[in-house]
Order: sequence, then structure tokens, then C-alpha cells
Amino acid sequence: MTKDELKVLLGKVADGGLSVDEATDKIRLQSYDDLDFAKIDVQRGLRQGADEVIYGEGKTVSQISGIVGHILSGSAKSVLITRLSAEKASELGKTVKLFYDEKSRIGIAGEQPETGSAGNIVIATGGTSDIPVAEEAAITAEYYGNKVTRLYDVGVSGIHRLLDNTRVLANARVIIAVAGMEGALASVIGGLVDCPVIAVPTSIGYGANFRGLSALLSMLNSCASGVCAVNIDNGFGAGYLAGMINKM
Amino acid sequence: MTKDELKVLLGKVADGGLSVDEATDKIRLQSYDDLDFAKIDVQRGLRQGADEVIYGEGKTVSQISGIVGHILSGSAKSVLITRLSAEKASELGKTVKLFYDEKSRIGIAGEQPETGSAGNIVIATGGTSDIPVAEEAAITAEYYGNKVTRLYDVGVSGIHRLLDNTRVLANARVIIAVAGMEGALASVIGGLVDCPVIAVPTSIGYGANFRGLSALLSMLNSCASGVCAVNIDNGFGAGYLAGMINKM
Amino acid sequence: MTKDELKVLLGKVADGGLSVDEATDKIRLQSYDDLDFAKIDVQRGLRQGADEVIYGEGKTVSQISGIVGHILSGSAKSVLITRLSAEKASELGKTVKLFYDEKSRIGIAGEQPETGSAGNIVIATGGTSDIPVAEEAAITAEYYGNKVTRLYDVGVSGIHRLLDNTRVLANARVIIAVAGMEGALASVIGGLVDCPVIAVPTSIGYGANFRGLSALLSMLNSCASGVCAVNIDNGFGAGYLAGMINKM
Amino acid sequence: MTKDELKVLLGKVADGGLSVDEATDKIRLQSYDDLDFAKIDVQRGLRQGADEVIYGEGKTVSQISGIVGHILSGSAKSVLITRLSAEKASELGKTVKLFYDEKSRIGIAGEQPETGSAGNIVIATGGTSDIPVAEEAAITAEYYGNKVTRLYDVGVSGIHRLLDNTRVLANARVIIAVAGMEGALASVIGGLVDCPVIAVPTSIGYGANFRGLSALLSMLNSCASGVCAVNIDNGFGAGYLAGMINKM
Amino acid sequence: MTKDELKVLLGKVADGGLSVDEATDKIRLQSYDDLDFAKIDVQRGLRQGADEVIYGEGKTVSQISGIVGHILSGSAKSVLITRLSAEKASELGKTVKLFYDEKSRIGIAGEQPETGSAGNIVIATGGTSDIPVAEEAAITAEYYGNKVTRLYDVGVSGIHRLLDNTRVLANARVIIAVAGMEGALASVIGGLVDCPVIAVPTSIGYGANFRGLSALLSMLNSCASGVCAVNIDNGFGAGYLAGMINKM
Amino acid sequence: MTKDELKVLLGKVADGGLSVDEATDKIRLQSYDDLDFAKIDVQRGLRQGADEVIYGEGKTVSQISGIVGHILSGSAKSVLITRLSAEKASELGKTVKLFYDEKSRIGIAGEQPETGSAGNIVIATGGTSDIPVAEEAAITAEYYGNKVTRLYDVGVSGIHRLLDNTRVLANARVIIAVAGMEGALASVIGGLVDCPVIAVPTSIGYGANFRGLSALLSMLNSCASGVCAVNIDNGFGAGYLAGMINKM
Amino acid sequence: MTKDELKVLLGKVADGGLSVDEATDKIRLQSYDDLDFAKIDVQRGLRQGADEVIYGEGKTVSQISGIVGHILSGSAKSVLITRLSAEKASELGKTVKLFYDEKSRIGIAGEQPETGSAGNIVIATGGTSDIPVAEEAAITAEYYGNKVTRLYDVGVSGIHRLLDNTRVLANARVIIAVAGMEGALASVIGGLVDCPVIAVPTSIGYGANFRGLSALLSMLNSCASGVCAVNIDNGFGAGYLAGMINKM
Amino acid sequence: MTKDELKVLLGKVADGGLSVDEATDKIRLQSYDDLDFAKIDVQRGLRQGADEVIYGEGKTVSQISGIVGHILSGSAKSVLITRLSAEKASELGKTVKLFYDEKSRIGIAGEQPETGSAGNIVIATGGTSDIPVAEEAAITAEYYGNKVTRLYDVGVSGIHRLLDNTRVLANARVIIAVAGMEGALASVIGGLVDCPVIAVPTSIGYGANFRGLSALLSMLNSCASGVCAVNIDNGFGAGYLAGMINKM
Repeated sequence: MTKDELKVLLGKVADGGLSVDEATDKIRLQSYDDLDFAKIDVQRGLRQGADEVIYGEGKTVSQISGIVGHILSGSAKSVLITRLSAEKASELGKTVKLFYDEKSRIGIAGEQPETGSAGNIVIATGGTSDIPVAEEAAITAEYYGNKVTRLYDVGVSGIHRLLDNTRVLANARVIIAVAGMEGALASVIGGLVDCPVIAVPTSIGYGANFRGLSALLSMLNSCASGVCAVNIDNGFGAGYLAGMINKM
Repeated sequence: MTKDELKVLLGKVADGGLSVDEATDKIRLQSYDDLDFAKIDVQRGLRQGADEVIYGEGKTVSQISGIVGHILSGSAKSVLITRLSAEKASELGKTVKLFYDEKSRIGIAGEQPETGSAGNIVIATGGTSDIPVAEEAAITAEYYGNKVTRLYDVGVSGIHRLLDNTRVLANARVIIAVAGMEGALASVIGGLVDCPVIAVPTSIGYGANFRGLSALLSMLNSCASGVCAVNIDNGFGAGYLAGMINKM
Repeated sequence: MTKDELKVLLGKVADGGLSVDEATDKIRLQSYDDLDFAKIDVQRGLRQGADEVIYGEGKTVSQISGIVGHILSGSAKSVLITRLSAEKASELGKTVKLFYDEKSRIGIAGEQPETGSAGNIVIATGGTSDIPVAEEAAITAEYYGNKVTRLYDVGVSGIHRLLDNTRVLANARVIIAVAGMEGALASVIGGLVDCPVIAVPTSIGYGANFRGLSALLSMLNSCASGVCAVNIDNGFGAGYLAGMINKM
Repeated sequence: MTKDELKVLLGKVADGGLSVDEATDKIRLQSYDDLDFAKIDVQRGLRQGADEVIYGEGKTVSQISGIVGHILSGSAKSVLITRLSAEKASELGKTVKLFYDEKSRIGIAGEQPETGSAGNIVIATGGTSDIPVAEEAAITAEYYGNKVTRLYDVGVSGIHRLLDNTRVLANARVIIAVAGMEGALASVIGGLVDCPVIAVPTSIGYGANFRGLSALLSMLNSCASGVCAVNIDNGFGAGYLAGMINKM
Repeated sequence: MTKDELKVLLGKVADGGLSVDEATDKIRLQSYDDLDFAKIDVQRGLRQGADEVIYGEGKTVSQISGIVGHILSGSAKSVLITRLSAEKASELGKTVKLFYDEKSRIGIAGEQPETGSAGNIVIATGGTSDIPVAEEAAITAEYYGNKVTRLYDVGVSGIHRLLDNTRVLANARVIIAVAGMEGALASVIGGLVDCPVIAVPTSIGYGANFRGLSALLSMLNSCASGVCAVNIDNGFGAGYLAGMINKM
Repeated sequence: MTKDELKVLLGKVADGGLSVDEATDKIRLQSYDDLDFAKIDVQRGLRQGADEVIYGEGKTVSQISGIVGHILSGSAKSVLITRLSAEKASELGKTVKLFYDEKSRIGIAGEQPETGSAGNIVIATGGTSDIPVAEEAAITAEYYGNKVTRLYDVGVSGIHRLLDNTRVLANARVIIAVAGMEGALASVIGGLVDCPVIAVPTSIGYGANFRGLSALLSMLNSCASGVCAVNIDNGFGAGYLAGMINKM
Repeated sequence: MTKDELKVLLGKVADGGLSVDEATDKIRLQSYDDLDFAKIDVQRGLRQGADEVIYGEGKTVSQISGIVGHILSGSAKSVLITRLSAEKASELGKTVKLFYDEKSRIGIAGEQPETGSAGNIVIATGGTSDIPVAEEAAITAEYYGNKVTRLYDVGVSGIHRLLDNTRVLANARVIIAVAGMEGALASVIGGLVDCPVIAVPTSIGYGANFRGLSALLSMLNSCASGVCAVNIDNGFGAGYLAGMINKM
Repeated sequence: MTKDELKVLLGKVADGGLSVDEATDKIRLQSYDDLDFAKIDVQRGLRQGADEVIYGEGKTVSQISGIVGHILSGSAKSVLITRLSAEKASELGKTVKLFYDEKSRIGIAGEQPETGSAGNIVIATGGTSDIPVAEEAAITAEYYGNKVTRLYDVGVSGIHRLLDNTRVLANARVIIAVAGMEGALASVIGGLVDCPVIAVPTSIGYGANFRGLSALLSMLNSCASGVCAVNIDNGFGAGYLAGMINKM
């Protein structure tokens, strides 16, 4: 509930059109729907400019299905579901209209939103194995109406592959750098461009990679300016934030 | 063996009703039953105000069954079993009268205790995925005769869901805050109330969550007063302690 | 601002005694005082049952002095200051009426509160070196009106020292177990009593102690029920929480 | 050297106005000045939109002085120096025109840039002790021409202080959340707004804070969308990135 | 090859009974048998007082079978195999005479050695789940001819179970304390006795146990004297060392 | 593209034989082949003296097959594939001529290169369980034309096995020391020889081994000179580097 | 209080020579002296075979002096004080008869015990920098009447220095291996001898040594049998345990 | 003692020119000089091709002076001393002819060796603050007769500085990459060249750098081939190893 809405509501109280108790309750109790196991944030669109997203891991299909049904019964036309396993997607698809992308494990329930054309987000990966995380970022950004350019397998072990694409990088409004192992990609890109770089460490690697820790620490310690990091494998978070910045 | 019992026993020695050697042994050897693979703490009820609880993980069904049988053959009417897998529960149920809750993996062998009505423990979770741990806490607290109010999915990413329930929080005598990821729920609740808050970090999350470490550290570093923490995913410990405090 | 206060205020709006804009601001802006570098929580007493406490570390003497002055100019008669170095205390004492305890590094500005007599909190330490943290807990608890029994140097390497005091432990309503090194004290006490045990790991030790990590992990993994933990060396937190529980 | 500049240069080669060898060298060798102990990135302004910044830690005063002199002898009117100790600043000020801010340890050599008026960056801190890091961010952002609103000491232990400032937060184009201890501030702000939030963990705290690790992990695991993190205590990085986003 | 054997050999060289080259090779090459994938230490019995032991994990059945066959074809009558899975044991038993204990995953190929009667090693565990590790220690110690007394499930959460057995502890020449979770058992025993205590942390537990780290750190930081630690779950190492000490 | 090739190309521009735009593109775009999911580094042979290698983990069989096909259609006669599971190898073998070594999980697509005879690389392991990693190193080194001597199971627990092979060590030009557990092998070898020692920690072990961390830290802290380390289990990296040094 | 003493005491109760209450108190309260800040374990000599030892770190000189005075006023002739800084020793020496060894930071108050002649403990160090920890072990062992042979600077980087002393090692009843950096010394010695080896990791080293962690992990993961470890830099613990074993 | 020397010695035994006992002792006892606190490896030149080096940290000036005097009294003309503080150097210089380089903290006692001209080692640093570690490597390599090219401050945040020096890199026989923060320099160089790259992580940085851990992990996880790592800040180790490889 925004401040303006609050003023309108208090105005009704001043007019006597609303009792004090009713107003108190309205303010407190109408901004989410309570499904018992989940409290759906129905006014998140107003507050945060984007509808509720469902994090699929650790939820049962019936919980996801319940939340999806509730949201789509409102004004929203679609819901984004992340970390949705193929098994759950297959089960969910029986009762819900669902687009599912196996590589990124993203599902979109309801209407597929139209392809976006806002700005230009470049998503680069260090290697082929980083692509699933990159696709989670890409599809998320596209879902929110952004244009995405993919630049995969341009890691620093063959740095000319990246340098040959400086033109692509230079045209970006925001760049998402997705890399595992030593995660140097984010720093190198950060040193080449003058736009925000969102670094996504991935858990790709072995041994002293410690499930993504090495890439994460690299990215946090980047000596290049204009670089920030999100959680290991958090393609969704990077795609969402990149979209937010891209539309500014 | 309490100090009073010790006095009685020593009194018998003074009366000559008990030899010195017999007394020595009595003091040493009668406070538990020895099943070889387990030493059952039969006087725990006297010493700690609650009967022995069985931690199911790492025990075989026949070990659990042996311990349960032994306890129920005494004065206890029921036994709480935590971390009991569905498979073991199914096997155990063949020989023992068993209530089993799959979500929390809790089993209650013997008589189900009556619903408690003491005080009011509020159990809040950050998200839907934290519910299994919260239910372990809830059922434990109820088993020991406490009244429990569940407040699920009120994490800080949509903080109005929590603020809308300040009335619920204000009525609590003890609050259990269950959260994974960044575990901020405990601090926020701790800053809103004037009752003890028991924080339970969960292993829900991925990447730099490091299996619950991030939530655990958050909760230990809470800048709010009146907050303490138990082990990651330790719903039982939180429910037990909350009950203990609630009844003071 | 409690819900009742909100109702009164909204009642005035309904009566026309207060304009909508004025009410909006009142709700928003009157619950703390803004010193620019600090926002003093003047209604914390109402909301949390205890006045604002000043964490002295990382604050300059003039910042502390400013906050103290502001609080004492209100209804509060004294302010608790934790982690106050002897140097700062000496400096602060020049302009503020200050009681200072060097061992625990606690300062009390303004009137010393009367000795409390509520219930009984037992504070046990593993060794002599843990006493400063224990005293932080003790003085905090006493500041809030609790009776404290000190039981120092009863660590598990000579466990009869602890067992000889089971009578003392049995009379406690809440116990604070303060220990460094392996932190086993909390578990052993937890297995002996039927009241809440708040474990405070200390950074006393060396080598694989890793500045308190070993004691912290021990306490979190306690196999005894009824035990919770606060941050390493957090005597204040334990004393505050113990007092809260003691008064229930 | 941009692609356009490369074309011009190659054009001269095509015209015969430049020999092949000369061109090869020009491309390779003219984009930085070599001071032996430092290679000054003279064309960083062209490539990244902001001049070279000097990280003062680990450099001697004579090294800093040498770099500053070299940069100011070019087209730049001022140079930002971070992590500059008061001692070094005092020494440096003898030979260089220097503005120095002790709290943030930032120095500006040469002309002080004019106050910026672009957009609005809100910088919030959890506590008073986080202010030095916040000021590093604030002065950096102002140096690059951004308007900054400071909102200090609004941590979650008294969350109404933050909620009372939702109007301030709502007016931000970018928010920097600076917090130590459990670092929950970033998540709570992230759940309230629809603009990018740059989280800066600080090393404020003790014990299981592990020099900022707890806040860092919290911020990386934020369950709110639109949040990214920079290194512990990296106020400069946050201020620089916020400015970059603010001007989009 | 001991110094005496070396002298004999060099004596033959002095006598001319052995050429210099032959002697050089003899010294170098005859103290182990080379199976290509394994170099069997055939003189370990002479050098270390106990025959070669096979660590079964990470070896194929055919590798184990090859090593066993080779050793038994020499003077040894039996071989101890640790960390032998039930599957491998079943396979190995087809070609080799094998005693197998599933709980401890120990196999003994060849003749079962006679029950030992040397001294008295007491093996205590904190809980029932620690028994497999304790049995690895017990069977190892018995294999090398030691008498073992088992004292299982005497953890500190019900410390009277341990105290009731001080007579058993007092009769030990060496004690092995096996415990997971907070591992306090080793310290408590260490404070009660005057014989060496070998602490074996186990990986039993969850959450902040971090696969045995909490118990390991506790045991290393024991404030009791006379305690040392071996690797997490290393029952074999504890049993072997205890036997070595027991026979002194 | 080497500097000489750049000169030739720029020479054509000077001659007018190539337009400026064409030259710009040529320089930028012709040094790799773009398969969309992978950018194959076709000129790596020129730049780095060895063709592209495929890291099999995290790639699908069809991705691997696509890359292999592309490389073999060029001038390369074979491709090395590491971390190739037996399942993928079996699938890949249906469409590609493939040599596969199950122990090391290495595949060689195309022609098997001839056995090398350059210098002498000795590969030593601490135990039998380290052999798979050692074989990854050995086959890699042999693939690049080096002669390899295997010296397996010579760990420090029976150090005479190693000392008996000092002649073998002394004849090495480079030594690869592969060991898990405490990883002492690298230091001991490093103290015996005067050639470079590449240490490969393995994840063999349990408990406080922490998946290879103990061996890694040991090797990095080696008090012997001439020792360097690669990632845990990185046999390929060690074999490749050893070959590079061997051929100097 | 031993079991025999308990029998005597209970005998008096049976005789009527002691009232029940008196007996109860006697059993509970007479086994230590309470100095308020310390509870001195006056019967530790009976229970553990060695008098109380004072850990000097974290205690003030007046606390140490108080404990020393109390102990010496009893039957003990001397007290061992570990981790005693030179400053404290100098202060303490003013009021107490004190032998002080600066290298090991050990003080002995009262009579210096006579040189021991029991058995033979060999203490080996990897380097010269490990000597202070080794001396803490050596002086401790000598204090308790053991014969000690020092074998310093025989680390594995020049392993012949160790091998040249196999005769010395072979004559040991117990060996203490003190080493920092990679800590390989313990494993190598463990593989050469057939007596117990107590490994003491030291914090000597830098970088990835992580204050002794690398040596600690190495020693815990030793592939040699008969090796156990104590805490980093815990020379006292090793010397005490070695003496206990030596005298068996 | 090499095998050839052993043969000669055994030949004398065969000739009767040396008794068996004398020979046994000679082999065992003459390869180092025993200074009590240090065992100087006088034949290290024969065994490892380079004389003994003194690690200055943790040694007193008189210990260093003793070792230096002993070595120089033999055939060696100079001794390298690393990690020598300016204070110790000043003290040491009073009694020993000493060259001292403050930046790298290296001392050379005795004659300064002549400048080397062997091959070409390139030492690159990420920043100016990494120079001390780089100089430790450089002076070490020069001490052993290698030619060194310094390439400082070419970190990836301005990657053209590095790319402009590909000619320098291409002429190297071995490269040492010294970098703190995210340590990406090693990977980028590794991807550009076909010679061995020795990566030296430095502790330069702050926050999530964790004293060099981030750079270390990056370098170990390098996706470029031909890269190995030494310990954090271990310039000496890198310089020594580079020299060894350079001279092959």
C-alpha cells in the first residue's frame, strides 16, 4: 500500500466514510492472500514493480500449483517459477498451462509474455558448462521485457574470444558475467566497459573450487570498478537486477 | 537420583537397614537401564522434567523398537522420536503403536498426549520451504503441552506480511523464528517484541548459503536483544526450549 | 507506537481533531530522535520493555556522550553502555555521571539502578579466564533487576567442582554457561538441570580454538535439550535474555 | 583505444601516411604511461568513463605522489585516493593540493569537483559504527557528480526507524545498504523498494561475525530481488557502481 | 632392514662374500614386494611391530584380493582390512577366507587371531549412533591381542550414566572416547582419569556439526590433560594406537 | 594471431589489397569457430603450442561430439577429452573414433598419438587409491609426447619404498607427486631431488581431509624448495605442465 | 575422592560416627578450595596422578599469585605455570620463588623438581622456529620426571637429517613430533617407528598455513599408524601425555 | 651423498680400507652439521643443486648469525636469507657482510653473486602493492643466476596494459604471475602464452580476500593450462622454482 493510497483511506476516515476499526484492519490485512503454507504478496506489483516469483526448490507440486492458481486468478497473466525440476514441471503441466525450459529449469505458468525490446543486456559465460545458469538469467530478463544478447564460452583461458567481442560488450547497457572455476571473467569484462557488470559465480569446477567459493571470492575481490556479485548459481537474481537497471 | 532420595538412602545406611557396599552400588547403578547398545535414562523425568527422547537418525529400527519397548514398559505413556524417516516409521509401526507426521519426520510411540493449552508459542517461518523444520518445533512443543500458533511464510522480502501480524507476535510468550537463506527474520522479530526469540537457522538455500551457515551466522550476530540460536534445522531443540520457557 | 495508541490517534482523525497529513506524519516520525549519526529509539521501552543500550565499540566518545545526554534528558534515569574501553570510560566520565566496571567493560551512565531481587540466574564459567564475559552477563542481568549467583571456574576438566554445586544449579530459574576452549560446560549443565541454559562461547583458547569457533560449534551441537547459544563473547546478550526469561 | 580510433589509424596506414611498423607499435604501446612501479591508465576516461583511482593501501607516499603528479599533469583536474591513512594524507598534503576526509579515509588531489546534482542515491546504514564505510561510498558518489541522501542508523533492531523513512527510500534511484553484524538491512530494504540495492557488508561486529563474513553471506543470500553485493567494507566500489547506475 | 641386518650385510661385503653392486641393490630393493599398483611393505612387522593393514576404500576387490593373497603367501597368517563395504566383502569372500563384521566394516582375511588378554582398553561412546566407529576401534584392538571393555551410550546429556561407570574407567589402562555432536565426552573422561585418553570425533550429527568438525575441534581444545585426538571416524587409528600404548 | 601474421595483414592494407574495414574484422573475428554453445579456439595450437582440450564434465554428449567433430574437421588429428564418464564415453564412441581409459576417465578422439620419447617424467603416488588421478596425469603427458615412469604406492607411511627408488627419482627431469590424506609425499620428494616437483593433492581420505583440503594445504606449505601445486585431483593440469617443462 | 575413601566415609555413617547430613556435605564439598575467581582442584593429585597446572594466559598476576600461594601452602612442593609471559613472570617473581624459561614461557613456582630418569621421550622438530613449542613439551615432561632427548631441525625438506637419527628414534618409548608448515614430520616418523607418536602442529608458517591449520590437518590425516594429535602449539599437552604413556 | 659416492665408500669397505662400523657411521652421520638448534644441510648443494637458504622469520639474530657463519666457513661464498626484517638485518650487518633489500626483505650474506644471464624469467604483478612479493621472487631468481624481466602493475582491471606487453610475455621461458585481490592475472597470462606460469597469490586486499585466500583459490582453479601455484606471498618459492625450470 503506497502512501497515496494511505492518504485516500485516511481521507475516508476523516469523512466518516470508514470507521476507525475498519480502517485499522484494512491497512493491516489486505496486502497479501493467506494460503496457510504461503502468504502471497498480491500487491508486490505495486510495491516492487514486478509480480511475485515462485522459488520452486523445496516446494511440493501441490504447493506450487496452489500458489500459481491463486495468482493467475487475480490480475496477473503469468507467473515465473525458478528451480523447477523436470519431474515437477511435468507433473505441474498436467493442471496448469506451462512453458518449461529444461536447461534453466525455469517454468512460466499462464501466458508467455511478449518478447521484450528494452535496452540491451549482454550475458557472457566463461564456458559451456555455465550456460544453464546464464539461461536462468537470460529467460528471467526476457520475461520482464528486456532484450538479451548471449555471448557464451568466452572465458579468459582464450581471451581473444572475449576481446573479439568488445564491440558486443560496448553496446551493452548492463552485462551479466557468469563464470565458475576462477571466475576471472567478471574482472576482465569490468576492466573493458563502462556499464554495470553483475557477476554470477557458478559452482562449475572441482577440488579447491569448493562448490563455487573460488569464483565467488574472485568476483567480490574484483579489482575492476563497476562490478557487483550475486549468490553462487543465482541466475534469476542477476537477470532480475539487470532488467531493473536496464529500464532506468 | 535427587538429593532427597540420597538422604533417604543414606538414612537407611545409618539405621543399619542397608550395608555400605549395597548402598554404594545402589547409588551408582540404578539410575538407568542398560540395553547394551543404549543406556536408557529412566530417571530423566525426575532430573530434567521430561522423559527420554529418541533421536532416530543413525539408529536401526530394531534399536529404536528396543528402546521404545523398554520405556513404555515403565511409567511413561509415550515416547517422542525425532528424525524418523518414513521408511523406518512404516517398519516401526508394525510392532509399535505409532503416530507419524511425515512433514516433520516426528513419530510418537504409545499414547498421543492431549493437546496442550499452556501459554502461547508463536512459530514463524521465512518461507514455505522452512515449514518441515517449523513443524518439528511445533509438534514437539505441543507434545509437551504447549499451545502453538503457526505464522508461516512471513519472510523479510515482503515485510508487510510480518508487520501485519504484529498483533499475533505481541501475544506470544515465546517466539520461534525459523528461516534459511539470510535468516534476517529473527533479527526483525527480535526488534519488534519483548519476549524471548529462539532462532532456528535452516539449510534452505543454495550457493553461499553453505547448508545453513549464512542463516546461522546471521542469527548469532543479531543486533536485536533477546535472541538466541539453536543448531541448523534443529526444530526439536527450539520446540523443547520454548516449551520450557513458556511454562515458567 | 502500539495498536491502542494508533486507535486513539485515528479516533482523533475521525473526530476531525487531527488532519490526515498531520496524522500521517505523527505515525511515521515521532518514535525516535534523530541525532544525525544515530537515531535514538525513544519508544523502545514501550515496544521492548527495556530502554536503548549503547554498544560502545566503534563509536567515538563524543558520539556516546551525545547519545547518553539525549537519553538521560528524557524519562530514562540510566543508560547501559557495553564494550566501553577504560580509555573511553575515563574520557566519558569527565562529562557524564558514570559507573564503570573494568573487568566487564560495562559502563552505566546516570543513576545506578537498585539491586534486583527477581528470581535467580546462575552464571557458571569453565575457567578463570572466562570471567570478563561472565561479568558482562552478570552486570547486565543485575542492571535489569535480576538476582545473580556466580559460579566460576567449574569447567569439565575437574567435573566434581561442578557436581558439587548441583544444589546451586537446581535452584536456578535460568543458567548462563560461559566457556571457551571446548565449551563442554553447556552440555554437561544442560544434562543436569530442567531449566533453560543459555550458552556463551568465549574466545578463550588458542590454536584450533579459532577465536571461539570450537566452543561455539560445541554449544550449537549440544546433545542436551534446553540449551541455546548466543554469539562468541556476547555476555550482554546472554544476560539480557536470561533476565527476560527469569521474569516470566 | 576505441574501434573508431583504430579505423582512423588504419586509414592512415591505407593512405601510406603511417608505416606498418609504426602503426603496430602505436596500437600496442600508447594507451598508458609507465612509471616503472605503476602503469597509469591514461585512457581509462575514454574506455570506462571515469579517470584512474588510486587505492592508497600498500602504496608509499612517494608512489602515490608520483602517480598523482603524473595524472594531474595530463588533462585530469583531480584524482580520487581511497584508503589513505591520516598519516599518509598529512605527508602527501605537503607536496600536493589535497582535500582529505578522515572518517572515510578518502583524499582528493587537485581541484575539488563541483557538487553533483544527478539523480538521487540513498545510503543507509545499520548503525553508527558503519558510517565510515558509508561515507566512503557517499564521497565517491558525490565526486562523480551524484546527489546523495544519507540515512544512518536505521538497522533492523528498531525497524520503525527504517519504516519511517520509506518515503526517502521510495524517492531513491539507487540505494546503498551498509551494515555489519547480521546484515539484514539489505534484505529488508530490498523487500520495500523497486530500485537496485547495492549491499555493502561491513566488518563491524565480533565473534561469529568473522570480520564481516556473516554480513556478507546474509547479503549474498538475500531473499529479496534486486539486491547485489560488493566486498566487505568496499564503500568505494558501491559508490562508484551506484553512480554508474544512477546516471543511466 | 634394521641396523644389525645392515651390519651383517656389510660384513659380507668386507669378507668379499658379496660384491659392492650386489650389496647396494640388496639394501635398496628387498624390503617390499612390488605388485605394480601396490608396494607391499613385507618387513613392516620388523620395523613397526605389526603387519601391513589394507585400507579398503578406493581399492577394487581385485586389488584387495591381490594384496591379501600376496601377504598371506608370506609368513603372515591374517590381514586386517578396514573400510570394507558389505558388497566388496561378499565378493572378496568368494576367493579368500574372510571374517567380516558389517557394523564396523572390518574384514579379517586368513586365520582369525586368538582373543587377546593384554591389559584393558575401555571404549566409550557418547551415543548409540557412534557404535560403528567404536567397533572399528574395538575389533582392531582385539585383532592385535588387547582386551577391550565396551561402554556405549554414556554421553554427557545424561552424565550420571558415565559417572556410574567411574569404576570401569578407573580400571582402564587406555581409554578411547568416541563421540559426535559436541564431542564433550573426551573432556569429561579426561578430567576423571589418570590414563591416556584417545579421542575419536565422529561425523554423527547435523547442521553446525559440519561432518564431525564440531566434535573434532572440541576434542583438540580439550581443557583436560592427557587427551589426544585422531581423525574424524578413525576408529582403526584409535584402536591401533591404544593397543600400542596398552602393551608398553 | 601472431605478431608476424598481423604484420602481413597490415602489409596488405598498406598495399591496398585489403580494405580497412575488412582488416578490422579479420583481426577480430577469425581466431575461433563459433558453435553457439562453444567457441572453439582453432588457433590455440599456434598461440599455446597445444590444441584445444575438452573438459567433459558438465557437457552433454552431443555438445562434446559437436566440438570433437569440428576440431577433427580441421588440421588436428586427435582431441583429448578429460573427465569423461564411462556412460558418456560409451555413447560418444558410437559416432566418434574413440580411445577410452576408464581408470583416468580420459578419452582420445581421432588418431591415437604415437608414444612419446621426450625426457622423463616420473609420476609417484602416495597410495593405490591415488592411481586414477596419477593416470590422468600420465596419459595426458604421454598424449603430448613425453616419456612417463610410474612409481605408485610409495607414500611416507613406509618411506623406504620411496627411498629405494631414489635412483628413479634422480633420473627424472620433472616429477609429479600425487597424494591424498596428509600429502606429505610432495615435501619428501622435494627434499630429495633437484628438479621441479608438481604436487597434485587428491581427495582420497575422509574426515578432516575435507575432500582434499588437507593434502592441498600441506603441498602449498611445503618446506622443500622447487615444489608447486595444482588443484585437487587435477591430474590433467599436472601432466600438461610437466610436459611443457620436460620439453624445455 | 576415590571409591575406597567413599567406603570409609560411609562406614563411619554406618557406625553412627557421622550424621547423614554431615556425610552428604563432606562428599560434596571437600574436594576443592574455592578462591572465588578459581576453584583449586586440591585432590587432582589423587584423582589424576598429577597436581593442578596453571594456564597463565588470560589470568592476571595477582590471580596466578593467589592460586600458586594456595597450592604451595598445601602438600605440593611446586606448581607448573604455562603460557606465562616474560612480563608476568618478572612481576610474579617478586613475591614467589620462581624458575622461568623464556623460550617456552614456562614457569615453575616453588621447588624445582629433580631431573627425571624414567624411560625416554624423543622430541623432534621440523625446524628451528618450532623449538619454543618443543621446549614447552620438553620442560613439561621433565617436570613430571621423564628423560627427554631433543632432536631439533630434522624436517622433511632434508630428510637425511632425520634418517641419520633413526637410531635415536628407535630407542624412544614415546616420540613427540613438533612441526609447522606442512607438518609432514609426524607421518614420516610414524612410518619409521613402532612406538606412539604425539604430533604437535605449530603455527609456524604463513599464507595458506592459516595459523597452523595446514599442519594440524596433515597430522590428523596421517597415513601412518600410531599417530595422534593435540592442539596447535600445545607443547604442554603433548609433554604431559607423553610422560603419562612413558611411565606405563 | 649420491649413489656414486656410496659406491666408492663401499669399495673401500670391500678393500678392507674401511671397517664396517666406520662405514656405517660415515653413511649415516656426515651429511649435515649439527648446531644444536639447527642441523645445517651441508651437502644440499650436491643433492639439490643449490645451497641451504635461511628462512629468517621466527629465528633470532644470533641463530641466523650462527648458521650464516657456519655455512660461509665451508665452501659456500654466500647465503640467501628470506623474510629478514629491517631490524634484524641492521643487527646482523654488524657482524656479517650483508647485502639487504628492504622491499623484498631479502638479505645476502657473504659475496654478492654475479648477475645471471641464463634464459629469461618474466615477473608480472597485478598492482603496485604486489611488488614486494615480486621482488622476493626476482632477487631470488637473480641470486641463482637467472635473467629477470620485471613487468609490474599490469592487472586485469586495465587489461590493455598486459596485452601491450604480449611481446615481452612471448619472449619468456618462464613467467611468474604475482597478484592479490581476485588473482585473475595468472589465468589471463596462462591463456596467452605457451610456457610455464608460476602463480603467486598475495595477501594484498581486504574483506573477502581473507588474507590471500581469494587469490589462492583463483589461481588453483585457473581454467588455463600450464599454471601452477605456490603459497600465498611465497615469492622465494616461485623465484627458486622458476630458476630451476629456466635452466633446464
